[in-house]
Amino acid sequence: MARLISLVEDQSPLLGEVARALAPHTGRAHVVGLTGAPGVGKSTTTSALVTALRASGRRVGVLAVDPSSPFTGGALLGDRVRMQEHATDVGVFIRSMATRGHLGGLAAAAPQAVRVLDAAGCDVVLIETVGVGQSEVEVAGLADTTVVLLAPGMGDAIQAAKAGILEIGNVYCVNKADRDGADVTARELRSMLAIGRNVEGEDAPQWRPPILKTVASRGEGIDELLDEIDRHRSHLVEHEELELRRRLRARAEIEALVVAGVRSGLSRGDAAQQLDRLAADVVSGETDPYTAAAILTPR
Amino acid sequence: MARLISLVEDQSPLLGEVARALAPHTGRAHVVGLTGAPGVGKSTTTSALVTALRASGRRVGVLAVDPSSPFTGGALLGDRVRMQEHATDVGVFIRSMATRGHLGGLAAAAPQAVRVLDAAGCDVVLIETVGVGQSEVEVAGLADTTVVLLAPGMGDAIQAAKAGILEIGNVYCVNKADRDGADVTARELRSMLAIGRNVEGEDAPQWRPPILKTVASRGEGIDELLDEIDRHRSHLVEHEELELRRRLRARAEIEALVVAGVRSGLSRGDAAQQLDRLAADVVSGETDPYTAAAILTPR
Repeated sequence: MARLISLVEDQSPLLGEVARALAPHTGRAHVVGLTGAPGVGKSTTTSALVTALRASGRRVGVLAVDPSSPFTGGALLGDRVRMQEHATDVGVFIRSMATRGHLGGLAAAAPQAVRVLDAAGCDVVLIETVGVGQSEVEVAGLADTTVVLLAPGMGDAIQAAKAGILEIGNVYCVNKADRDGADVTARELRSMLAIGRNVEGEDAPQWRPPILKTVASRGEGIDELLDEIDRHRSHLVEHEELELRRRLRARAEIEALVVAGVRSGLSRGDAAQQLDRLAADVVSGETDPYTAAAILTPR
Repeated sequence: MARLISLVEDQSPLLGEVARALAPHTGRAHVVGLTGAPGVGKSTTTSALVTALRASGRRVGVLAVDPSSPFTGGALLGDRVRMQEHATDVGVFIRSMATRGHLGGLAAAAPQAVRVLDAAGCDVVLIETVGVGQSEVEVAGLADTTVVLLAPGMGDAIQAAKAGILEIGNVYCVNKADRDGADVTARELRSMLAIGRNVEGEDAPQWRPPILKTVASRGEGIDELLDEIDRHRSHLVEHEELELRRRLRARAEIEALVVAGVRSGLSRGDAAQQLDRLAADVVSGETDPYTAAAILTPR
């Protein structure tokens, strides 16, 4: 598995062949994304969920995604130490992935890494984002079920709303609930979610995202969290939403690969030289970007 | 100008024709990006720079870019009030643009909006990002000269480093320098920039980004800021870097338009239907995303 995921990260030319071989074995795993601001306890919660999943006899894959600075390429280090208790369990596979600093990095490599874990027989694949920003929202595009974590503290729900992660949760979790302000955060969250729902309108048998309180470091509330995650999957299956979500996901993945292919075509050989010449002509005012793009667009 | 920029924002089909007509009139304006975390005083500094530029007899375009939540599409409102003192000055053109919530939104529309202001005879185009995140970094890709703003406060330089905006400045500015801690912030910044330079190596006649202190609300330090901005442009011209930067920018812009064209091709007609079918086949395990992408990639 580790070597297959390395092929994915390196965008190896063997990937196509590997993907073809894996395809018939995919589609079983429940893909669960965990997201939230730094410091809410994502690693601890992920680790506690792994323990609970193992206790129920399920095989688990964990993909920890590190967003990198777009310029230095250096990954912000997450606290992987918490995962070490699972390191010797053969029913658990843990892998960190860097997003390699480019936009859409997560979108490009993570779906195929999930597919590897799925084909290898993981019943549940947990995707945890380490850090901040766009990747939190992207993770929702990869998961069947998205868990949004918050921690007590003034304005946290408002910060989450600004970051665009309030709209993406299927299950909400106020972690570190032994701290002051947990009830306030849960209440704030409840009213913000209520506003969101009113805007959304009246889709028929709608999933109402539950709001849980956990203390992941002591395992408190984790069984309930796992119950809600499982209940969400059942809901998706019953209402035929699972298939729909996965089709949208596959669509986005294929599209991303097509775009990557076109970009790579522009970076090589005659097309690259033509692009350089056209860029110089745009700067000198001899042509414009639209005309240049029309010349280079494959059809 | 306003109507031309609206065409750009709406991605009107007339854009190609407009771009062709504008091309010969572009390339004169000095494009200056202003970026930094919320609260550092970007609007105030932009407004003060406009005043200083007008005092030196130059025509000014201001493009204020509002990043939107990727889900709601609602722009976080910047403080446009500060700009109103320039509203009746015919030598100043001010325009807010939303990035429309999609990744690459700024990259897609802003370069052409800059080109409109350039062709209209603006000597300087100021691009100000309202808000946070990826757009701060993107703005550096659009500008000849990037000004990074900070404000006094513990850890601000470190936050900036994490956000990846420390690597992109040509001029640094500690605004609100009448507050406690301005010297500390400037010192922190100086040592972090020194680290960055050591890593970078020994390119010949290198630009050493100056660190200024301003109180934009009272206009203090703004003439010096403008001097450094002008000095950076002279440096670029003398070392033939301006042309190089603009070619890279034109290249990226053309590439973005090619990708947009390919994406739009996949969203219509036969290709869209084929994409839907292939996505369903990926979900059922009959095919894999790489095979599907190979079928759909134009060449």
